[in-house]
Amino acid sequence: MQLVENLIARYVRQAEPGLLTADTFALERKPLPPLREGEILIRTIYLSIDAGSRAQFDDRADYVIKAVLGKVPGSSGAVGEVVESRHRDWRSGDLLVTPHARWQLYQVAAPAAEPLLRRIDPGMGPLAMHLGALGMVGFTAYIGIFHVGRPQPGETLLVSAAAGATGALAGQFGRIAGARVVGIAGGAEKCAFVRERLGFDACIDYKAGNLDQAIRAACPQGVDVYYENVGGAIQHAAFAAMNDFGRIALCGQVGQYSGAGAQAGPNLMTAVLKRLQIQGFLAMDHLDRHATFHDSAAAWYRAGQLQHHATLTQGLENIHEAINSLMAGRNIGKQLCQVSAEPGQEFPLTAPSFTAFGPGASHR
Amino acid sequence: MQLVENLIARYVRQAEPGLLTADTFALERKPLPPLREGEILIRTIYLSIDAGSRAQFDDRADYVIKAVLGKVPGSSGAVGEVVESRHRDWRSGDLLVTPHARWQLYQVAAPAAEPLLRRIDPGMGPLAMHLGALGMVGFTAYIGIFHVGRPQPGETLLVSAAAGATGALAGQFGRIAGARVVGIAGGAEKCAFVRERLGFDACIDYKAGNLDQAIRAACPQGVDVYYENVGGAIQHAAFAAMNDFGRIALCGQVGQYSGAGAQAGPNLMTAVLKRLQIQGFLAMDHLDRHATFHDSAAAWYRAGQLQHHATLTQGLENIHEAINSLMAGRNIGKQLCQVSAEPGQEFPLTAPSFTAFGPGASHR
Repeated sequence: MQLVENLIARYVRQAEPGLLTADTFALERKPLPPLREGEILIRTIYLSIDAGSRAQFDDRADYVIKAVLGKVPGSSGAVGEVVESRHRDWRSGDLLVTPHARWQLYQVAAPAAEPLLRRIDPGMGPLAMHLGALGMVGFTAYIGIFHVGRPQPGETLLVSAAAGATGALAGQFGRIAGARVVGIAGGAEKCAFVRERLGFDACIDYKAGNLDQAIRAACPQGVDVYYENVGGAIQHAAFAAMNDFGRIALCGQVGQYSGAGAQAGPNLMTAVLKRLQIQGFLAMDHLDRHATFHDSAAAWYRAGQLQHHATLTQGLENIHEAINSLMAGRNIGKQLCQVSAEPGQEFPLTAPSFTAFGPGASHR
Repeated sequence: MQLVENLIARYVRQAEPGLLTADTFALERKPLPPLREGEILIRTIYLSIDAGSRAQFDDRADYVIKAVLGKVPGSSGAVGEVVESRHRDWRSGDLLVTPHARWQLYQVAAPAAEPLLRRIDPGMGPLAMHLGALGMVGFTAYIGIFHVGRPQPGETLLVSAAAGATGALAGQFGRIAGARVVGIAGGAEKCAFVRERLGFDACIDYKAGNLDQAIRAACPQGVDVYYENVGGAIQHAAFAAMNDFGRIALCGQVGQYSGAGAQAGPNLMTAVLKRLQIQGFLAMDHLDRHATFHDSAAAWYRAGQLQHHATLTQGLENIHEAINSLMAGRNIGKQLCQVSAEPGQEFPLTAPSFTAFGPGASHR
């Protein structure tokens, strides 16, 4: 079978700072070239939505490859199903996860040239988990906790953006490491999720005011490790709460990804007096640890120690809404754009947009 | 001999932000109590002047013990001569260095209660060096370079406040470690000193403008290790020049010690993208390394690899000027207040205020 037509989302109108509007992108049909030897054709099921999905349209964000007006933007990950193969190791119906995907229904890939394209064992758990707990966000949280922040049993770990994809996982890994885990999230619903579903020991609602006092109350022994994902006022408050010799794992600063520009950092005299270690990290530097991560996370998932949560926005035509959901902090867990059905699934789904996986996790 | 009278500098008028005025302190004579068993009486020769000397009068500096109005302020170090002893290990004429000293001509100390009070071997070199290259600033620079920043042979080390006490030593230690060393200092005279006397490979005059461009020109391979001592705009420019996986040794931020309040720090997204390691440190945490430091620094001094430089302000009545000299950046090398004569010296001195010690170093 050779499919002849793809569905693409083209970047047609310069994005303004803030939330993305529907007319920024245009859905088009486009002929698909025939596969060459060694290539496979992938039907995109889930596209990963992360901070870079928005930042690629922000001229001031010099840390991502910019989307080009008139072209099809990219995503840092997708789960899909092979629908045609000219590679001897791949068959129609194989499921895979890939770190390179365009905003389109079908992707052409040459597995030999993409070492990070991996086959999914469908018995492992829900497909979306391969872009979450078992994906790059899971790997990032794993490196940040086990190799950068290194909370020890009994220490206090503070996690910002605790209801978000990476924060939710960082906190769960912190619990596995034996730390007392305190989250920071925006709003009562998210805080309840972080405490009751993720099992954090406490969660602070930063929208409720007096953050410094709330952190002191939730962390009576101070903060030994801070997993930083937001920047701005929350970052400043966390620095102020650190114990001497505390460690700060700098994962990102989602607060400045939406075109608001760079915020001032904390005065670093605090870091001198408290002898803080502040470490920026990118999971990509630690690929030699990926296999260990993947085996560990899968085992923790099977043992009921690790949950995966995702918020789905359905339809490639709604991908701007998927990004807006992340930027406005409406998502709980990993934000995804579902482009087409999982095998055996009807699409679009009639189920609600939030899904939780893992023993003890219920859907809502 | 029992001396009956001391000379003290009392804190009599609340200090305002900025430079200190002469009427902030009053010189007074005060009776000396007789020595008790185990005590020694020390004639103060040099008082160490450092950032804390000023910060003790700044209500916003929460990182130092505050001076109390009506009392005699303190200094974090002094070199002196024993003039009377009721301790069996000490004799009149012994020379020593102590980390606790008041602003007064005579100090009473109980050596058994002060483990950091150390005898000086007068054959080792100039006395003032025990508050500089062989003192706490030397130890601080040593820890910052050899245990925190760890520049490797061929790497580029950038040092702020390079003509100051700690920076001058950090850069020299960096040269000993095999790094290419670039300083940042204020003004052409200081830069010439840093290049020609201290032997840095280059020195940037931050007062000459366009700091970002000057750092790029002086560090064509980027910056691998930044020894940070100033804060503010220089800190921001240094962050921007860091290489991936660079290390920043946070020693202090002299720019905010004079009552100007805390400055904003750099946006830490840079640290994520460059995977920087930012480490605050205090030398006091590393006292187990002090003996190794002292032996190494003495050996480097004797081998001509390490110079000590000091700026002297003479007279306890001028101690506010000694502090102002440091705050205004008029000092080169370690700022001291000379309270009385070295053995065999006339006092006040007729020699100029700047002294340089070490093979190859000339006086000016």
